Amino acid sequence: MGNTYAPLHGLNDLRLFGNNVSYNSVDVTEEGGWGPVRTFQVASSEVRSGDRVTIEPGNFCRRCDQCLAGKYNVCPQSSFHANVALYPGCIGRYFQYPGHLVHRLPDAVSDEEGAVVEPLSVAVHACRRAGVTAGTTLLVTGGGCIGLLCLAAAKAFGATNILVTDIKASSLAMAKKMGADHTLLVASGDAQSQAGQVRQLMGCMPDVTLECSGTQAGLCLGIYATKSRGKVVQVGLSGATVTVPLVHAGVREVDVLGVYRFVQCFPITISLLAKKKVDVKPLITHRFEFDEYKKAFEMFRSGEDGAIKCMISC
Amino acid sequence: MGNTYAPLHGLNDLRLFGNNVSYNSVDVTEEGGWGPVRTFQVASSEVRSGDRVTIEPGNFCRRCDQCLAGKYNVCPQSSFHANVALYPGCIGRYFQYPGHLVHRLPDAVSDEEGAVVEPLSVAVHACRRAGVTAGTTLLVTGGGCIGLLCLAAAKAFGATNILVTDIKASSLAMAKKMGADHTLLVASGDAQSQAGQVRQLMGCMPDVTLECSGTQAGLCLGIYATKSRGKVVQVGLSGATVTVPLVHAGVREVDVLGVYRFVQCFPITISLLAKKKVDVKPLITHRFEFDEYKKAFEMFRSGEDGAIKCMISC
Amino acid sequence: MGNTYAPLHGLNDLRLFGNNVSYNSVDVTEEGGWGPVRTFQVASSEVRSGDRVTIEPGNFCRRCDQCLAGKYNVCPQSSFHANVALYPGCIGRYFQYPGHLVHRLPDAVSDEEGAVVEPLSVAVHACRRAGVTAGTTLLVTGGGCIGLLCLAAAKAFGATNILVTDIKASSLAMAKKMGADHTLLVASGDAQSQAGQVRQLMGCMPDVTLECSGTQAGLCLGIYATKSRGKVVQVGLSGATVTVPLVHAGVREVDVLGVYRFVQCFPITISLLAKKKVDVKPLITHRFEFDEYKKAFEMFRSGEDGAIKCMISC
Amino acid sequence: MGNTYAPLHGLNDLRLFGNNVSYNSVDVTEEGGWGPVRTFQVASSEVRSGDRVTIEPGNFCRRCDQCLAGKYNVCPQSSFHANVALYPGCIGRYFQYPGHLVHRLPDAVSDEEGAVVEPLSVAVHACRRAGVTAGTTLLVTGGGCIGLLCLAAAKAFGATNILVTDIKASSLAMAKKMGADHTLLVASGDAQSQAGQVRQLMGCMPDVTLECSGTQAGLCLGIYATKSRGKVVQVGLSGATVTVPLVHAGVREVDVLGVYRFVQCFPITISLLAKKKVDVKPLITHRFEFDEYKKAFEMFRSGEDGAIKCMISC
Repeated sequence: MGNTYAPLHGLNDLRLFGNNVSYNSVDVTEEGGWGPVRTFQVASSEVRSGDRVTIEPGNFCRRCDQCLAGKYNVCPQSSFHANVALYPGCIGRYFQYPGHLVHRLPDAVSDEEGAVVEPLSVAVHACRRAGVTAGTTLLVTGGGCIGLLCLAAAKAFGATNILVTDIKASSLAMAKKMGADHTLLVASGDAQSQAGQVRQLMGCMPDVTLECSGTQAGLCLGIYATKSRGKVVQVGLSGATVTVPLVHAGVREVDVLGVYRFVQCFPITISLLAKKKVDVKPLITHRFEFDEYKKAFEMFRSGEDGAIKCMISC
Repeated sequence: MGNTYAPLHGLNDLRLFGNNVSYNSVDVTEEGGWGPVRTFQVASSEVRSGDRVTIEPGNFCRRCDQCLAGKYNVCPQSSFHANVALYPGCIGRYFQYPGHLVHRLPDAVSDEEGAVVEPLSVAVHACRRAGVTAGTTLLVTGGGCIGLLCLAAAKAFGATNILVTDIKASSLAMAKKMGADHTLLVASGDAQSQAGQVRQLMGCMPDVTLECSGTQAGLCLGIYATKSRGKVVQVGLSGATVTVPLVHAGVREVDVLGVYRFVQCFPITISLLAKKKVDVKPLITHRFEFDEYKKAFEMFRSGEDGAIKCMISC
Repeated sequence: MGNTYAPLHGLNDLRLFGNNVSYNSVDVTEEGGWGPVRTFQVASSEVRSGDRVTIEPGNFCRRCDQCLAGKYNVCPQSSFHANVALYPGCIGRYFQYPGHLVHRLPDAVSDEEGAVVEPLSVAVHACRRAGVTAGTTLLVTGGGCIGLLCLAAAKAFGATNILVTDIKASSLAMAKKMGADHTLLVASGDAQSQAGQVRQLMGCMPDVTLECSGTQAGLCLGIYATKSRGKVVQVGLSGATVTVPLVHAGVREVDVLGVYRFVQCFPITISLLAKKKVDVKPLITHRFEFDEYKKAFEMFRSGEDGAIKCMISC
Repeated sequence: MGNTYAPLHGLNDLRLFGNNVSYNSVDVTEEGGWGPVRTFQVASSEVRSGDRVTIEPGNFCRRCDQCLAGKYNVCPQSSFHANVALYPGCIGRYFQYPGHLVHRLPDAVSDEEGAVVEPLSVAVHACRRAGVTAGTTLLVTGGGCIGLLCLAAAKAFGATNILVTDIKASSLAMAKKMGADHTLLVASGDAQSQAGQVRQLMGCMPDVTLECSGTQAGLCLGIYATKSRGKVVQVGLSGATVTVPLVHAGVREVDVLGVYRFVQCFPITISLLAKKKVDVKPLITHRFEFDEYKKAFEMFRSGEDGAIKCMISC
């Protein structure tokens, strides 16, 4: 079971694919190029031959200050194997990987859910850093794939009042379907007036904004909309520089946080899926057979026919 | 709508009752003694005449270091009005109360749910102090009313693997009904072997133990069972002194935390009820008309017929 | 003993003055305009008639969510009495003030030190929010009055490796005198190359940047210079919008925090002065008699003759 | 330069010795038994041949959940090489050790100070877990070696009001010499009345108690003396079980924390010594030549002549 999905954090190249679920019994010929993962060699006491697993991409040195402090996602020597431009990709018959980064999937997690563990872990990490918890009021700017996963994760963390914005009505419809309490079309208008609309719709200023649009506009809205002492989290990646009212955040002690991938999140994500605390099925819009994989990747890239997650069956 | 419920934290006198929900339109003769609350006079911009409300019991000075630091529950001058031995109780035709401690109930919260906001807030506070979050593995020692509320609250905070212990099979059955993943009868055996059983049933050592039995045995089990760097939270009140293996907690950096009532919890609790993140209905075992209130209190006290929460209708 | 000092946070009007120390026995005629504080009427069990005191400016509602959560500095109804444009100032024969915001000065704190409690508390608050602690490596961008106070406070918090930047050599000389481990003149060059110089001089990337220049350049330097998972704190107030490489902070999980005044800081600041953990005497550059107060304010405003803090003796 | 010192945490065997400082140029014959460390083989980019170093004892797996979360001190597979009963000791001509646990000593740290990095790191870790910071008020129960190091470390963290207790007047005299603000002889009396004395002497209830006596009495005093919402930290190791008023801590939300060795502390400790934030010289009571090492260990063991730290010169 492979998985194609949207570039993480809005980067422009398709960086990660097919890495999530594999049977040890699978053994197909690799033709090069895009395709599903094959067989892992793992060395973990937790995992046995035949187990369905997902891997946590991104190895790290385990010796530097960041690793020793439990912040391995910002290890300066981290290698994110999905970045095929820099590292050997994981598309191949065999893929050797450190056992402590290979996580067993319990029976309650389907193959398709397993294929979503990685991007959902980005959302879980964002919720953890932001301190999303029971009763949190939340603004999600950007209803793309990662925004929708943040919505789903935040509900599992107990958030009770969530508004999702987007520039497309279809994204907002999907957000509603996935449990958003409110939605707001932000195709026009300035950030300050949009912040006023957010407040009116939610009945309060949100405690947290998860900025998932990767735009300056989203950051500005987050800064104006978020409650004093709240948090704006940069989940989406904006441009090299942005022009933002940072002082407006400062004097209200709104903190602007970054998140990068995930750290100690995979076991949490898997348990949320196993316990049905998160439902990612609405995000799986298309399914393909193995020999259709090129079509799957193209559809995912273009977003044609409302494609969000395209699943390739092995 | 009044509410009778178990002594908070295992104290021996019935301290708090009938304080949770009231209509401004209610106006009945007060005969003294136990009975439901009548009419509040509130001074809050959030609440208007006719609103259904719940009050946060326990006023505080708002001037001392603890209050200024947001820890008003441990204000040395705090007065918990429900303690009728020390302060005027809230059973009366009129009850004057600070507006900032009066919380409006939204339409989505029923009267009966409103009557459970206070004890559920104790559980919410325990979860917050313990850092219960998505994926937390949890041991609840003691399946009485407060233990069951902790179970319910922890699920709303995202806990995914919860084991409840008790010395009565009936309590464990109720815990199962309310969503416990595992239960363990602890009628016999020493704490260390019970801790082994907990580990085996849960498949791991729990991150957090919420000790709700108010017993030395519960504390010992919590200390042995909890994962290194985890937390044992004293929700139940044990005896004046206890004999416990504190060094066993110390060398594994398991922290033993206290909780006292709640602080900044009522809005969270109300939102959890409004969004159906917590279902307290199974706890409401009996219902009475107003003139049966003495019987209601007696049944609650004795626990006869499996009484957990007895509701009195006004 | 009065005190004139620089506008807080780089605002353009002189907002606060003469508010810090007063004898109850002082009783002078008020002529209007600028001048030293006279007599307080206080209502605090901690303070007795005749005590030397300092007041914590900025009253708050003590009822809203922020106040109840111990974040009274961002109370929406907060009134900062020193802002004479909006509220009655504190220059007058009598000044009535809530007792819980009046802090007694112990004998070990001189009048002149007492006059510095307020701005030093801004620095203490910044250090607390940033998590400055023993062994913290610190960059302070901007060696003006508040930057120097941040330097002094950070040393009291245990910071062991501090670099101060400024565009003026004289400020750096003062920073050295007050214990900076390193200084860097940032009159020219881009933020990225300056960040490289910071790293080389300090022997590491700093854990924390306290941005005290109130400039876009300072923010950019902080973002590039700070270690992954570190913090950039906006102490100085920059312009309405800034153009900054926020994504560079985001992907390294460098958090950009705001600070506003102080919260629960005055007792800490007073104890640091009493125990000689902070030496503010180098900052007191000029002293004046009472009838020279206009000259004092003018000198302070112009910064003539290297004026940092000008003290007016009553 | 070797170092003999007191058993960590009150364990009964002498577990750790001679491990802290070594010259690569040292090359003496090892006779077996106790003796100073010789030559390290290190593999660290930070350290070069000829550097003076100190090692962080206690290796760990770097793969388990605890290690990945930055809590390597509670790694279940941790091996503390100083425990000669279980692991090969570090007394020998060659000692091979992971480079990331070998820390270079800067010129500003003397050999003797280098020999104290390990026990001082225990104190640094305790201060970090307890949140000791600028202005913290602190009770240290037990003025032995680790208590005195906690005192010294806490001052470097900014604590401003510290009381040390002991049952021996000589220990209190040493505490005074090392900067304790107050001392209290606790040879007699119950914990509650002693707590009253602590409050009176300090002028407040302490925010934090660092329990360094390893006794039930010390724990009881800490629980009664500490301010609501404060912390009692078990630094000393008490008996297998203790009888304590845990509920008294619970209802005041005083948390009882454990500490185990240290985690990410060595660089901090070294920087505190290098910057003269901690003065450990008063603790070095005796010095010996290399061939006197048996006498040194015996004196240390017996505590004869007020021995605290006995240094052996290589």
